[in-house]
Amino acid sequence: MEFVSKKIKKHNFSAGPAILPASVIAEAAEAVRDYQGSGLSLLELSHRGPEFVAILKEAIALTRELLNLPEDYEVLFLTGGASSQFFMTAMNLLPQNGNASYVDTGSWSTKAIKEAKLFGNIDTLASSKDKNYTYIPKGYTVPNDSTYLHLTSNNTIFGTQYHTWPATDRPLVCDMSSDIFSRPIDVSRFGLIYAGAQKNLGPAGTTLVIVRKDMLGQTGERAIPTMLNYETHIAKSSSFNTPPVYPIYVCMLTLRWIKALGGVTAMSHKNQEKAALLYREIDQNPLFEGTAAKEDRSLMNATFVSKRPELDNEFLAACEAEGCVGVKGHRSVGGFRASIYNAMPIESVQTLVNVMQQFAEKHA
Amino acid sequence: MEFVSKKIKKHNFSAGPAILPASVIAEAAEAVRDYQGSGLSLLELSHRGPEFVAILKEAIALTRELLNLPEDYEVLFLTGGASSQFFMTAMNLLPQNGNASYVDTGSWSTKAIKEAKLFGNIDTLASSKDKNYTYIPKGYTVPNDSTYLHLTSNNTIFGTQYHTWPATDRPLVCDMSSDIFSRPIDVSRFGLIYAGAQKNLGPAGTTLVIVRKDMLGQTGERAIPTMLNYETHIAKSSSFNTPPVYPIYVCMLTLRWIKALGGVTAMSHKNQEKAALLYREIDQNPLFEGTAAKEDRSLMNATFVSKRPELDNEFLAACEAEGCVGVKGHRSVGGFRASIYNAMPIESVQTLVNVMQQFAEKHA
Repeated sequence: MEFVSKKIKKHNFSAGPAILPASVIAEAAEAVRDYQGSGLSLLELSHRGPEFVAILKEAIALTRELLNLPEDYEVLFLTGGASSQFFMTAMNLLPQNGNASYVDTGSWSTKAIKEAKLFGNIDTLASSKDKNYTYIPKGYTVPNDSTYLHLTSNNTIFGTQYHTWPATDRPLVCDMSSDIFSRPIDVSRFGLIYAGAQKNLGPAGTTLVIVRKDMLGQTGERAIPTMLNYETHIAKSSSFNTPPVYPIYVCMLTLRWIKALGGVTAMSHKNQEKAALLYREIDQNPLFEGTAAKEDRSLMNATFVSKRPELDNEFLAACEAEGCVGVKGHRSVGGFRASIYNAMPIESVQTLVNVMQQFAEKHA
Repeated sequence: MEFVSKKIKKHNFSAGPAILPASVIAEAAEAVRDYQGSGLSLLELSHRGPEFVAILKEAIALTRELLNLPEDYEVLFLTGGASSQFFMTAMNLLPQNGNASYVDTGSWSTKAIKEAKLFGNIDTLASSKDKNYTYIPKGYTVPNDSTYLHLTSNNTIFGTQYHTWPATDRPLVCDMSSDIFSRPIDVSRFGLIYAGAQKNLGPAGTTLVIVRKDMLGQTGERAIPTMLNYETHIAKSSSFNTPPVYPIYVCMLTLRWIKALGGVTAMSHKNQEKAALLYREIDQNPLFEGTAAKEDRSLMNATFVSKRPELDNEFLAACEAEGCVGVKGHRSVGGFRASIYNAMPIESVQTLVNVMQQFAEKHA
């Protein structure tokens, strides 16, 4: 199995929903047409039937294996996106009038803080808002009475990423939507990890939650609707109600692909190689400059701007002409953003680098 | 466009996730491989891009058109299943200490009642639990101070369905997961309708909510997380966060198919024809008998048992031999259940009827 298994028609640099491995796409399409010769589409199969039960079981087992999860962690495939985890984490983890610490590294952190405030005393320990979120704050102290410290591990919009975790003995609760499975992590630091699937894991429509069991059961008298209670989904193996069958299936295929290529360590090496290639060009090219602090640069989303903004549209057109799509930056940063998730082949990054070089030569 | 557009390999009588139109399956598979010649899979396309924006817009417009929705109704495509609507309806509609009336027609109603009790005074006006939910209760009075009357329009497990709506001037809130788009409805009776997609509408992974705007804004001081507030999703046209792109796409294709075949009136005629064929056999066949009260029989899920239960497994094997799958009854009723949703061709129902007849002859 290779990173590139079909002729690349488009180089998809979208931030999410994002590129998926070509082999996953091919198998996912066939499963819609006829699931493994069953004569039925996977879309038509019961979530209680042996086919989907096996898919879900494998998705959970692969998550455990790839992240090397100890026994006391549970793996859930839910819905509602990371946006629902912003409140579900606080709702399920915080005692009545409990405290939690947050670090604000951009839009997603800000939303997580807003929702958590409905359920406890939320202390924003640090923020990089003062410099439009171009860096990861460091050097703060986490209070001993914090139930957890919440982080956003990778900030898709601002192109920053934690490369070391803060020093604290409090458990981390982390939104890893855009970098899960992109590198090894020391899971023992985390009480809960959540991730919308639609970047490194699969298509839109399911949300991975990994929770250490001792984080639960501390909410006292808080009334939690059944569907919002992690314990419901743990007890029923993510099948209390009808789970999002097809999104979970595509995640399972992606997890198989990650495993076949050598797991998260191999992903990490490839991701470092791709990011180095792209950032080298951003730094060398006279027309462009990176927006994030170098030590905090994301290996998933490279944000950069042009020194001659009047050429922005022409550059995007040059990208499109070579099949590089999704390069336009988020409105909060402007300029350009190249998302280079696990499934992005280095050949595509090289294509973008070539476009950048040719564009600079043309406008030298 | 025909009901049958490919050779039927399997007759899928599953209760849900369930049969989808063959033409929808074919187009849905191609969209995974390469979305409309874009060189990208639909699974990889941004939810903010023109392709998905058009899909969502069309899904909403088709819902409005097919159900003849007045302007003051909003259409949302959410996640979390009908199970999440059990609490979201009460959370979003009930005033603090407000009252709502419920009718208990089986498992789903019972769960809806349980979740609603977290948010107000819930009065269960009537229940058919006394006869294992084999009928639809009638003849109750809805109190004037009820914010709404909650019903489950079709009960997949017990094979019952409302064929007339209760007389009341209170707005109805209705779980139509298993019969939406199967027949015309007088929308003006309803303040809110919700439906998990995975029966008549599409695959698992999205939930349709139709709400009349005057139902909202009555919750006073209740703190509602952003993702649980219908007003969030109304303001952002179901794209506050990343919506479940692919499930919504398949729903849109199914809605196109319904429209092309003549809309919900045409669906209703086909469904009556199919149900009549199946129930006639259930009533005539010496080996079988229906479980639901005749006047309340579901046109979507026909439940029946054998008079010689020792033959149950042999009958299921006879069904399988003719490609009829998903016929085993739910454990709460036993026996058999044939789900004959919109997408089920009458040829498949005839195949099942033939199996029933041959089985009865063999064991005469």
